[in-house]
Amino acid sequence: MDRAKPKKAFRVKVHAHETHFRTAGGLHIQDITDEVNAAVADSGIKDGIACVYSPHTTCCVRVNEFESGFLEDFTTMLRKLVPSDTYYAHDDWDRRTENVCPEDMEIGNGHSHCMSMLLGSAGESIPVRDGELALGQWQRVLFLELDRERDRRWLVQVVGS
Amino acid sequence: MDRAKPKKAFRVKVHAHETHFRTAGGLHIQDITDEVNAAVADSGIKDGIACVYSPHTTCCVRVNEFESGFLEDFTTMLRKLVPSDTYYAHDDWDRRTENVCPEDMEIGNGHSHCMSMLLGSAGESIPVRDGELALGQWQRVLFLELDRERDRRWLVQVVGS
Amino acid sequence: MDRAKPKKAFRVKVHAHETHFRTAGGLHIQDITDEVNAAVADSGIKDGIACVYSPHTTCCVRVNEFESGFLEDFTTMLRKLVPSDTYYAHDDWDRRTENVCPEDMEIGNGHSHCMSMLLGSAGESIPVRDGELALGQWQRVLFLELDRERDRRWLVQVVGS
Repeated sequence: MDRAKPKKAFRVKVHAHETHFRTAGGLHIQDITDEVNAAVADSGIKDGIACVYSPHTTCCVRVNEFESGFLEDFTTMLRKLVPSDTYYAHDDWDRRTENVCPEDMEIGNGHSHCMSMLLGSAGESIPVRDGELALGQWQRVLFLELDRERDRRWLVQVVGS
Repeated sequence: MDRAKPKKAFRVKVHAHETHFRTAGGLHIQDITDEVNAAVADSGIKDGIACVYSPHTTCCVRVNEFESGFLEDFTTMLRKLVPSDTYYAHDDWDRRTENVCPEDMEIGNGHSHCMSMLLGSAGESIPVRDGELALGQWQRVLFLELDRERDRRWLVQVVGS
Repeated sequence: MDRAKPKKAFRVKVHAHETHFRTAGGLHIQDITDEVNAAVADSGIKDGIACVYSPHTTCCVRVNEFESGFLEDFTTMLRKLVPSDTYYAHDDWDRRTENVCPEDMEIGNGHSHCMSMLLGSAGESIPVRDGELALGQWQRVLFLELDRERDRRWLVQVVGS
């Protein structure tokens, strides 16, 4: 009889984690892999999917190598594709409506929104196996700040068994 | 004894939703947040992951701000990165095989495919918490039409408990 | 009484699949749809989410049409946006640290990393319905090699019931 103690594999587990921090701004990229893996370990979930998510419109979570040369190459490329020193209608709107903070009205973050849409989805979904993110040898989970220095947070939602 | 009525947390729920609509074409971006949240509410799932998905090769689902200035900035940038007035081998193929509708053979949508691949994944995975999408203050779920005016649909698949 | 034999819908299933292969290099794109669908069928999962994932930093998994004209258009566009014949600080780092294989030190793959970050997330999450990927008519699951010819693998993680 396994009714009193159902098999672990039949139970779905959902685990929610959230980290708050302050970014450095200026296309700063932070390695959050260890914290995400710690959240996965806390969840007790052995097999499933982890959704690592940025709830901000001018940030995103990406998986790649955390190596300073590459990060420099990448930010150079991104600034070339989406220059900040051009006109953005979004910055006019922010100034007109005044519903953003004074720093944003002055500097503008229209280019940060465009960068974020170009880079793709807000988060990354990563398989969880044997209680860990199934990352490849060089893969790290990165939080990309595409805007100025700000208070930010990222979420992990793990679903599995 | 909780055997007769197992704890809700142990049951996995999977909910499937689909919306059909006609897009406006010409890089039209539509805010579908309220409908996606309604589908999440219908699911009865309190905690999990929602996968909002475009089953089309020249559309995608993205999360960002729904503000007309930004949408104008973004479409201007995208048209510059992926111009429509250049040669696309895909358009030749469509014309040669004649297995697309006459409008497509005339106008061509090679650039729409390239835009869609550049923008990234077909859908967005978003954490569900307390029965709602865990969107940030400015985040909205957007359906991007990168092709002409067409009949389209988007899916939400919610998995959790 | 359904206590002794709980309803199938209440059980969560998690299925892990992995395929190893050698890519052709040179922005080679491979259609892996049939193998991914076979893995979904093997899982016995009827409704859920499939996360198809590349554990490599210079590859990604994308969903789009598998048509040679389009693939030619796309790789032409990508090479223009992220040229390989320019300086990449990452290549210097690889050469300096000597912790990559000789081919990488000679050719360099800084541009491959940049392409991969630009294209977005490492994988794609796709709804599973009636035991199959809920792909649209023209959608195929594609594995993109952005680097030279290499040994690679892709993962599928299916969660559902």
